Amino acid sequence: MSANFGRQFRLSIFGESHGGGIGMVIDGIPAGFPIDEDAIAYHMARRAPGNDPTATARKEPDRVKIVSGILDGHATGAPLCGIIENTNTRSGDYAQLRSRIRPGHADYAGFVKYNGYNDPRGGGHFSGRITAPLVFAGSIARQILQKQGITVGAHIAAIGPLCDSRFDPVNLTADALTALHSLRFPLLNADMETPMRAHIDAARMRQDSTGGVIECAATGVRAGVGSPFFDSLESVTAHLLFSVPAVKGVEFGDGFAISQLHSSESNDPMRVADGHVICTSNHNGGITGGITNGMPVILRAAIKPTPSISRTQQSVNIETMENTDLAITGRHDPCIVPRAVVVIESALALALCELLMDDAATHFI
Amino acid sequence: MSANFGRQFRLSIFGESHGGGIGMVIDGIPAGFPIDEDAIAYHMARRAPGNDPTATARKEPDRVKIVSGILDGHATGAPLCGIIENTNTRSGDYAQLRSRIRPGHADYAGFVKYNGYNDPRGGGHFSGRITAPLVFAGSIARQILQKQGITVGAHIAAIGPLCDSRFDPVNLTADALTALHSLRFPLLNADMETPMRAHIDAARMRQDSTGGVIECAATGVRAGVGSPFFDSLESVTAHLLFSVPAVKGVEFGDGFAISQLHSSESNDPMRVADGHVICTSNHNGGITGGITNGMPVILRAAIKPTPSISRTQQSVNIETMENTDLAITGRHDPCIVPRAVVVIESALALALCELLMDDAATHFI
Amino acid sequence: MSANFGRQFRLSIFGESHGGGIGMVIDGIPAGFPIDEDAIAYHMARRAPGNDPTATARKEPDRVKIVSGILDGHATGAPLCGIIENTNTRSGDYAQLRSRIRPGHADYAGFVKYNGYNDPRGGGHFSGRITAPLVFAGSIARQILQKQGITVGAHIAAIGPLCDSRFDPVNLTADALTALHSLRFPLLNADMETPMRAHIDAARMRQDSTGGVIECAATGVRAGVGSPFFDSLESVTAHLLFSVPAVKGVEFGDGFAISQLHSSESNDPMRVADGHVICTSNHNGGITGGITNGMPVILRAAIKPTPSISRTQQSVNIETMENTDLAITGRHDPCIVPRAVVVIESALALALCELLMDDAATHFI
Amino acid sequence: MSANFGRQFRLSIFGESHGGGIGMVIDGIPAGFPIDEDAIAYHMARRAPGNDPTATARKEPDRVKIVSGILDGHATGAPLCGIIENTNTRSGDYAQLRSRIRPGHADYAGFVKYNGYNDPRGGGHFSGRITAPLVFAGSIARQILQKQGITVGAHIAAIGPLCDSRFDPVNLTADALTALHSLRFPLLNADMETPMRAHIDAARMRQDSTGGVIECAATGVRAGVGSPFFDSLESVTAHLLFSVPAVKGVEFGDGFAISQLHSSESNDPMRVADGHVICTSNHNGGITGGITNGMPVILRAAIKPTPSISRTQQSVNIETMENTDLAITGRHDPCIVPRAVVVIESALALALCELLMDDAATHFI
Repeated sequence: MSANFGRQFRLSIFGESHGGGIGMVIDGIPAGFPIDEDAIAYHMARRAPGNDPTATARKEPDRVKIVSGILDGHATGAPLCGIIENTNTRSGDYAQLRSRIRPGHADYAGFVKYNGYNDPRGGGHFSGRITAPLVFAGSIARQILQKQGITVGAHIAAIGPLCDSRFDPVNLTADALTALHSLRFPLLNADMETPMRAHIDAARMRQDSTGGVIECAATGVRAGVGSPFFDSLESVTAHLLFSVPAVKGVEFGDGFAISQLHSSESNDPMRVADGHVICTSNHNGGITGGITNGMPVILRAAIKPTPSISRTQQSVNIETMENTDLAITGRHDPCIVPRAVVVIESALALALCELLMDDAATHFI
Repeated sequence: MSANFGRQFRLSIFGESHGGGIGMVIDGIPAGFPIDEDAIAYHMARRAPGNDPTATARKEPDRVKIVSGILDGHATGAPLCGIIENTNTRSGDYAQLRSRIRPGHADYAGFVKYNGYNDPRGGGHFSGRITAPLVFAGSIARQILQKQGITVGAHIAAIGPLCDSRFDPVNLTADALTALHSLRFPLLNADMETPMRAHIDAARMRQDSTGGVIECAATGVRAGVGSPFFDSLESVTAHLLFSVPAVKGVEFGDGFAISQLHSSESNDPMRVADGHVICTSNHNGGITGGITNGMPVILRAAIKPTPSISRTQQSVNIETMENTDLAITGRHDPCIVPRAVVVIESALALALCELLMDDAATHFI
Repeated sequence: MSANFGRQFRLSIFGESHGGGIGMVIDGIPAGFPIDEDAIAYHMARRAPGNDPTATARKEPDRVKIVSGILDGHATGAPLCGIIENTNTRSGDYAQLRSRIRPGHADYAGFVKYNGYNDPRGGGHFSGRITAPLVFAGSIARQILQKQGITVGAHIAAIGPLCDSRFDPVNLTADALTALHSLRFPLLNADMETPMRAHIDAARMRQDSTGGVIECAATGVRAGVGSPFFDSLESVTAHLLFSVPAVKGVEFGDGFAISQLHSSESNDPMRVADGHVICTSNHNGGITGGITNGMPVILRAAIKPTPSISRTQQSVNIETMENTDLAITGRHDPCIVPRAVVVIESALALALCELLMDDAATHFI
Repeated sequence: MSANFGRQFRLSIFGESHGGGIGMVIDGIPAGFPIDEDAIAYHMARRAPGNDPTATARKEPDRVKIVSGILDGHATGAPLCGIIENTNTRSGDYAQLRSRIRPGHADYAGFVKYNGYNDPRGGGHFSGRITAPLVFAGSIARQILQKQGITVGAHIAAIGPLCDSRFDPVNLTADALTALHSLRFPLLNADMETPMRAHIDAARMRQDSTGGVIECAATGVRAGVGSPFFDSLESVTAHLLFSVPAVKGVEFGDGFAISQLHSSESNDPMRVADGHVICTSNHNGGITGGITNGMPVILRAAIKPTPSISRTQQSVNIETMENTDLAITGRHDPCIVPRAVVVIESALALALCELLMDDAATHFI
């Protein structure tokens, strides 16, 4: 029951979809660090639902009100608290929501966990809306990383069975990652946009939804970030990624595919180039022994189809303990993958920032 | 740089492959809990290298000497420390090991991280041998889970491209899981053992190694274990799984495959049966919103091929910063997947134990 | 740089005296727990400055706006965020505040720590105002403790050299503690109020301030709460107490005076009474080995004189690095001891709640 | 129930007085840091019981066997585990020990906490012997601090009612602190040794014991170490100090005495001297707002009389729940204050090291 993460860059998130608001407290931002609020807003907007037909019709400006921790554009060193007030909510009578169990959602698990006291309105604390604070925090982490020459970016690797190209794991550039930020439907192979959107539209027309895969990378990460075992970059990043609702799989480098290789193929050969050690391939996604090796960090996250669909589904009434047929009404994304891209980036940015700071703690002498 | 994990069931691991020994400290075992040391030894033996031709020739009894925390067979409530002394080590002159960078290993990343001071003998703290303490701790977690009616088990889901059957995600039983424990090469479909072993043998003959996938499950887990966001069962389990050297991918339920479904397929329909809420399918692997829903918990972990191979590989000398050809000698597993099965089980057992205890902390009133 | 405390009852505090607001996030409140907001407001009012002549003239209603975590009067199980907006602030031009170093304050230490970027207005994050969130969180902890039959209360043990009576460490009752809550100047010996107030008034007339001691106790605490070493009740409580600005000393039971005794005096004799084990004296303040023994828990905290005084003091200008004479203007308490009583109580309540929950985590089987 | 402390310099301690051994795991030592094992042994010997008549007759060499984390005299960056094997133990039949409750000890509190399963031999995990790992860890922290120009030292401030002089809080030097290390009965005023030893002897002759106070200081600490609230240097240090068995009071600077001053007396005036900011007095013990201000850090800890005495005491039999008279036999210190001096120093060293590393984590950019 922990809304806290991080030993160095410490994040607390809070909020419920239709309550007073959502937000976060971040402790550990270096004092004096210039916070670019416009850049934060830029990334927040990438997550926000909008006019894109793949997204829910609910419009949330997601304006973050800074309560503390920033003065004259710089971090004060004290905890930063930011709040996004909930507006445009239509709660209605929610007493009946408690007993209505939506398949694929947290409704049943949450009902049992919280003895029926969890806020059922709009999914409450389980809402995907709570990823907005992750993006906010990730955007600050991103700015800190930028000073270290690190860039994080991601693209839609798949929508349902339709796949985009993969990142070039060896020659990936910061510019290529940055270019993806401005795309509402970020792809490496632009030709896939039409069939992918058609796949999503077809799902919506059938009152259904679809999932996908996001590929995310970071360039400019020096070797030596992360630790063996519980602070491996993979562990910390996966911890954050699996905190994102709907993520059901995470892989680094070749991931599941590496299990089909032989070591003679998957061991990335090492060479000296321009006085630096490089690998001529990157099956390990820039991480060996839990620690970065200087190659681009690459991961993929599998996103399940949004469980909220209008189709009638088999469910139960948890009060009467009887079977029931359930049709969910309301505003839902037929595919959250495009909006989730910046969330996945934020998780990687947070993990890198955490472990860079962790590394600094032991290098003070 | 953290060798600590857990807020409730707190584990510290330590040790280097060819140093004085390896071990762990566990804090949080309920006082008076009967510790079955034979059962621990049973699971430790499953990980230990032995006569099985898939494993390294190095024979380690992995006998754990209990230093504290157990008296007359019961946990005292004080921290349990156990040590496995390193024996049968052949270190030789290791000064030159520091500069010898093995591709696919942590050697280069570790050299940079630790400024060349990490113990290079046998991989030091990066050695797969450090998973023995994980199995020890996991075996105690398993005993605690057993009292709650929870059973954890796993099988080899794939060796290279050769796949075993999958667990029946709905009707999986504790007996089926327990039966797997006693198999040195645990499979659901025994017919796959011969071709899989042949695949491993072929790799060894070519001085190569191969990877695979492990599928792991827990039965008897009540609904309500885990939390949204940073204490999701997926987050905590994946954190531990990615701490295991060689794991490059983790997925729950249908995992990456769920991203290709529509929600109408992946939403597990819910029904009332015998007064309980059940799902008639289990695409979500027993977890929604980060919390268990009462169905079997199911995950898969991708294991990369052991990077230690005798073939000549392209590498660098980190002292002279020159390219070099490297041939690794010594005793190596051509496939660690069979030995890793119990390690993966241990990670899931530790995560479940942690989150069950976490749940108990808020139910005291 | 941590604004987080607690493993079970997890508190994050934030805010700066003259920024957007102050507040806290609490994670770990049992779902369904009824939150009595009036009772919280009651204790918040005890800390708030008011008409009492010992307090600053600044009037702050300290109304907490609940952002999340409470629905229909019950904890939802999700993190509770509450905000107190800052009003009635007179910031003026604060650029010059940065260079003005107030002796006895955090100004210089904070300037160095935060490279001059900390919010200097009203002390920023160092303000005593940030104890309001501690009282809020402590008030919820208090409600949880109440269900366990535990009562926390405190009195002014000394103002300057003038001492109140001490708690009867053996026969202290919950009623005696509760009775103290309603007193604006809580004393055991009411006769001391007049001389103590005179002492404070005299200090104010001299543009000076005075310190004091607060004695705090908890009754109804069963034996077995706390742990040896780092989770000793004394460690956890003292950690919180020394987080309160102005606390410079903490002692449990006889505290410093016990060091002058012989063991034959300080060892509390044990007897069986009505089937329970009791002590016939309580020199140890209800704690042995870091764990409660069933006797009243008793501690004292030393509060230094408020450093903000109008008298001219010797100081430095940190920009010009020159000596300067400083006269602080503004609204200041000549003695914060009366207002700090509820803050000290809150720290003890938080520590007891944390360790009760910690104990529950290991008693689930 | 936590044997873990620290976010940066992470310490796990374990062990029971008469079990297999005691020890610690330290994670976070900078890789490559040269570990001076002789210097560690020097400080360990200061704590060890010896021929000094104030100490127990039990002779423990306290030789620490390094299991991991050091290679060729340098920290490897992996967790350091060290074990002190228990020898010279006389356990005998300990079943009866469980029911024998020693007044002033943790026996009763521990029995309840651990349901009677705690190791009762020699106090088990409650033994003062478990402070040896604290001294070990503190000795490494001390070496790290030394590189920053920081020296920690302490003296006996009081034995019973007999007081030594106090540190000069303004002009204290590193040499003065270092000189104390070599004294078996460290005092500033050597004339007090005879009466103090006489006081201890008198207690022993009466089969009794006596307490005292230890004053501890650190010089060379730059301004800016520590944080407001939960990472205040006072909070972190007091947390560790109250983990030390027998500590019942902790104060910084003038501590309890500051509560009797006016602010015009206790506010340390600030001046510029040689281009640095200094205070001309040090009532605050070098800490304001939880952060060091560059003046010597000064604290005192009150030590209660050792509860183990041979005199007959009133107690209970916890099995039969009857009153009983108890006479404790065995080897006991009539006064542990001299041996505790290095333990108190170790706690301060650990806290300073933790917060210096914490500070470094946010200064990486």
